[in-house]
Amino acid sequence: MPFSFELKAVDRSGARAGSIQTDHGSIETPIFMPVGTQGTVKSLSPGDLENVGAQIILSNTYHLHLRPGEELIREAGGIHRFMSWKGPVLTDSGGYQVFSLADLNRITDEGVRFKSHIDGSMRFLTPENVVNIQLDIGSDIMMVLDQCVEYPCSRAAAEDALDRTTLWAKRSLEEHGAKMTRGGYERVLFAIVQGSVFHDLREKSARELVSLDFPGYAIGGLSVGEPKKDLLEITGLVAGILPEEKPRYLMGVGFPEDLVEAVARGVDMFDCVMPTRNARNGTVFMSNGRTILKNASNARDFGPIDPDCGCHTCRNYSRAYLRHLFMAGEMLGPRLASCHNLYFYLHLMHQMRQVIKDGDFLEWRQDFYSKYGDSLKKDQYPI
Amino acid sequence: MPFSFELKAVDRSGARAGSIQTDHGSIETPIFMPVGTQGTVKSLSPGDLENVGAQIILSNTYHLHLRPGEELIREAGGIHRFMSWKGPVLTDSGGYQVFSLADLNRITDEGVRFKSHIDGSMRFLTPENVVNIQLDIGSDIMMVLDQCVEYPCSRAAAEDALDRTTLWAKRSLEEHGAKMTRGGYERVLFAIVQGSVFHDLREKSARELVSLDFPGYAIGGLSVGEPKKDLLEITGLVAGILPEEKPRYLMGVGFPEDLVEAVARGVDMFDCVMPTRNARNGTVFMSNGRTILKNASNARDFGPIDPDCGCHTCRNYSRAYLRHLFMAGEMLGPRLASCHNLYFYLHLMHQMRQVIKDGDFLEWRQDFYSKYGDSLKKDQYPI
Repeated sequence: MPFSFELKAVDRSGARAGSIQTDHGSIETPIFMPVGTQGTVKSLSPGDLENVGAQIILSNTYHLHLRPGEELIREAGGIHRFMSWKGPVLTDSGGYQVFSLADLNRITDEGVRFKSHIDGSMRFLTPENVVNIQLDIGSDIMMVLDQCVEYPCSRAAAEDALDRTTLWAKRSLEEHGAKMTRGGYERVLFAIVQGSVFHDLREKSARELVSLDFPGYAIGGLSVGEPKKDLLEITGLVAGILPEEKPRYLMGVGFPEDLVEAVARGVDMFDCVMPTRNARNGTVFMSNGRTILKNASNARDFGPIDPDCGCHTCRNYSRAYLRHLFMAGEMLGPRLASCHNLYFYLHLMHQMRQVIKDGDFLEWRQDFYSKYGDSLKKDQYPI
Repeated sequence: MPFSFELKAVDRSGARAGSIQTDHGSIETPIFMPVGTQGTVKSLSPGDLENVGAQIILSNTYHLHLRPGEELIREAGGIHRFMSWKGPVLTDSGGYQVFSLADLNRITDEGVRFKSHIDGSMRFLTPENVVNIQLDIGSDIMMVLDQCVEYPCSRAAAEDALDRTTLWAKRSLEEHGAKMTRGGYERVLFAIVQGSVFHDLREKSARELVSLDFPGYAIGGLSVGEPKKDLLEITGLVAGILPEEKPRYLMGVGFPEDLVEAVARGVDMFDCVMPTRNARNGTVFMSNGRTILKNASNARDFGPIDPDCGCHTCRNYSRAYLRHLFMAGEMLGPRLASCHNLYFYLHLMHQMRQVIKDGDFLEWRQDFYSKYGDSLKKDQYPI
């Protein structure tokens, strides 16, 4: 079944519910994608991911390129067989990791030369080889190589980066086209809008990329330190320019409240290390906020993390046990907390999908904040 | 259903197949008990334990006493509810941990005074409070406090320790009797035979304890550095003295070949950190030996650890993927390897149970060594 996106409902808020078809299964949107940086969502098995309701996972081109290398994954039969995950996979392009992790040597129009954070070896990524690396990895949705900028950055630097991102998007397209079939299933390429927090640059970036007719579009370069207000303004601005009939993906965002606000602005897809990284540190999300499992207040709390939660962790384990696992440094702690947090995120997306189709998103959002909002700065949300 | 042991078959070798009934379920023997030191078998959920065929797990009185403390576990409703494991639980007494882990201050007839390895606080274990701690923890099978000695040790020191172990066994019995019901289910107390590698001392220890009529007996103080020959000689000697109608438990042993040899000498129960600790280091067992997953030879091996193995790991993941997980330091590696190694151990026990009932144990043992034995020192097994 070829890649497609069907818009099923648009709420008066602008929130959208839809469905993406891929050869590895369909994805109901809005959706959150658990992050499996190195070909594994840390501590979880594919079975766990199914149980928390994951429909698609993300993996990182940069990390997989450095270790174990895309040739090995191709030889293994692709990322799905390699990690034993049957559903769709999206890979990012490595643009963000080169920017944030590697000892960056030089960006030119040709590509990015950098030092591996693992062994210090020199590497070179180009728009072309990033597409080919992702074809070897075998993801269903590939991302073009983009140039991220830090926050804050000058207008000139932001414009320079977005121009290069557009140039690279064109060259990525020229390498194979935006849709191609390999290994018996279709792979599609999404473009990434840049432009930092400059409204006119974001608009320029979005319009240029839209004219190239990609099957989907991401909003990149956010969640890099800019104020929440900018994050959401830019998200709303760009979403308003992107074509209605194509999926919109906000990269690397964020807190539950960020997802709610971005959905209200018409975003369909998200990824973030937030739920899993927080879980490994023992911080878990609940319908009324967050708790740190190691807190003494949880020591003799024999109830679940969240009595309203239907996840495996909440149905089987107490806060007291989870706290014990974290105090004792036991691996089961991060695992059970990761299951809970991902379930929380995916259940939140599920609730939003339902209300966009059958209810009123703005009313639901008010209800969400009435419980969850106590943990937020009052002047910040909703924005 | 009250605690009982039924002997179902005794092979010409002396190998026994039986069944232990507890209020948390029955245990087919010979059996291996996965070790859940701190109230969790490292990296695994209770569901995983069921999937690998675990029928009973072991937890450590010493560790649980220090953290989270037995009162908290009692308040949680006992160890089964605390860790969400529905099957039987055996707790050791802490005698071995006090001997091997703690900064040992003083052993007197009264008990053991030691420094906690966690916070340096002074603690005091007596035969009486060790029974009461285990009653709070809520295990189905409790062990008496014993005194372990190092290897080698003098005859005088070994005799002193076994005399004290017998004295403590009597006092443990006096505290509550050998069988008691608490919290709606029965708890039983096993004694532990000591005596180092001195045959006459082992015989003395066994006869003294047998006269006290415990529901089950353990062979302790082995696998502390003595030659394999001594381990197996002492095991055979003691098993020959222990009553036929009661379960025999060889503590802290061992390698797969040790289990085979000990079963041939009439042992019914085992525990050891071997399969799980090795798994966390990336060493996995196979019907023809062992492999270290990080070895370069596994890098492009897209087959399972062991094509003959029916475990979840072998059915779903390649050596290449497992090696990648270990090279990348991913938690899923230890988890999948632990599942495999425990399945290997429990499947080995399953095979032995079957052959004791329906076949010839010595022939099966020969077959076992014909595959597995290549990895062993030729002059060492079978002994």
